[in-house]
Amino acid sequence: MAKNENKNQVILYGRHAVISALKNPNRKKIKLLCTKEVAHELKQYSPQIVERKEIDKLLPPDSVHQGFALICTPLPPVDLEYIISQSENTDNCHILILDQVTDPQNIGAIIRSAVAFNTLALIVQDKNSPQETGSMAKSSAGLIEYLPIVRVTNLSRTIERLKEAGFWTIGMDGYAQTTVAELKKGGKNAIIMGSEGKGMRRLVEENCDITVRLPMNEKAESLNVSTAAAIMLYEINKR
Amino acid sequence: MAKNENKNQVILYGRHAVISALKNPNRKKIKLLCTKEVAHELKQYSPQIVERKEIDKLLPPDSVHQGFALICTPLPPVDLEYIISQSENTDNCHILILDQVTDPQNIGAIIRSAVAFNTLALIVQDKNSPQETGSMAKSSAGLIEYLPIVRVTNLSRTIERLKEAGFWTIGMDGYAQTTVAELKKGGKNAIIMGSEGKGMRRLVEENCDITVRLPMNEKAESLNVSTAAAIMLYEINKR
Repeated sequence: MAKNENKNQVILYGRHAVISALKNPNRKKIKLLCTKEVAHELKQYSPQIVERKEIDKLLPPDSVHQGFALICTPLPPVDLEYIISQSENTDNCHILILDQVTDPQNIGAIIRSAVAFNTLALIVQDKNSPQETGSMAKSSAGLIEYLPIVRVTNLSRTIERLKEAGFWTIGMDGYAQTTVAELKKGGKNAIIMGSEGKGMRRLVEENCDITVRLPMNEKAESLNVSTAAAIMLYEINKR
Repeated sequence: MAKNENKNQVILYGRHAVISALKNPNRKKIKLLCTKEVAHELKQYSPQIVERKEIDKLLPPDSVHQGFALICTPLPPVDLEYIISQSENTDNCHILILDQVTDPQNIGAIIRSAVAFNTLALIVQDKNSPQETGSMAKSSAGLIEYLPIVRVTNLSRTIERLKEAGFWTIGMDGYAQTTVAELKKGGKNAIIMGSEGKGMRRLVEENCDITVRLPMNEKAESLNVSTAAAIMLYEINKR
């Protein structure tokens, strides 16, 4: 979390992240800052025009803010049961679950792909997953505004609940026998991914209906977690 | 380029990047530095053991070097005709061409995916593409050692040459009519990708046999170039 960020406020920065957030009625705007060069892009939102270095001071060093900063409330948490009720209106949908992925930039990049490939929601474990940050919103290119994020206490129990609700639970594991392309098509799917180094925790993995891997050259031991997620979501969205 | 880097030497850092480079006979080692905590991992290479801050001083601020740094020669350039001669031994292969992708970390991430998905070579335009850097090698997770990189003067002429050699040339363009999944399977393919904002240059695009897009939700105007490349290479490698 950057200085001045806390559980009740987040500092968004960068053109896409700030403009997307301003359009989101679920955000409460606390303060909107921009440099004079970009003020014309924000005129309908009455920004406070400041020097570039005033924005620099609010953010971690070297944040590429492009002259845009918005102090606002974080996105409201979404309830698992609400997402399940939404899934009842469709025969084909998918959810993404991240187990212990901690880097906000990776999570932001995953959010961007999730929106691109029609993911219904992202589920993370509350205690092992970072809160929303400006860098997460920025690396999502502002698409964090469109993806419901559910924070749960216990992932194994969540996977059980999704199974009851008709989801097929698919864990990603580099050592799995089945490849992603061999999965049966359609239906309701929940994809579970662990961190890049350690993968899913054993208890989480044991709860999955199946584990799958991406077929790849043995020289590459793994892919970046956000790259692997993007390919998986692309593939599941195609069916 | 970091200070102390030039056309004749590059400073690699991070465990994977340094260890991969040490195993590559095409690299000439100039100096190997590490901290005492990780020295046991490098003992066969006779490292010079230094304080962490000595390595910090060689690198851009906040480089995550994990105690490893290697000053060495850059990878030798590879000739286009050599790659074409290699493609003559197979019926199925693919090459990736980047037009004006300039961020070294994106290029490194693309290299990692290219090795994972059996890409024969990466082709870039010499004057618009950064030289090899430490951050590029790091974000490739050391896989830059395995991917031939061809630097050419003129991309349109290169595309023509690849067509003569039997390659089908596929440009990626968010506005294309055909999706990636509709491409015919197998054969020799050259994939051409432009930068995230601007796409391919017009002359390059006009030279392609076909343009394709990734199917995605309209809320996401685009994907990060390294994410789009990963999905494209995954898909083309599956056939």
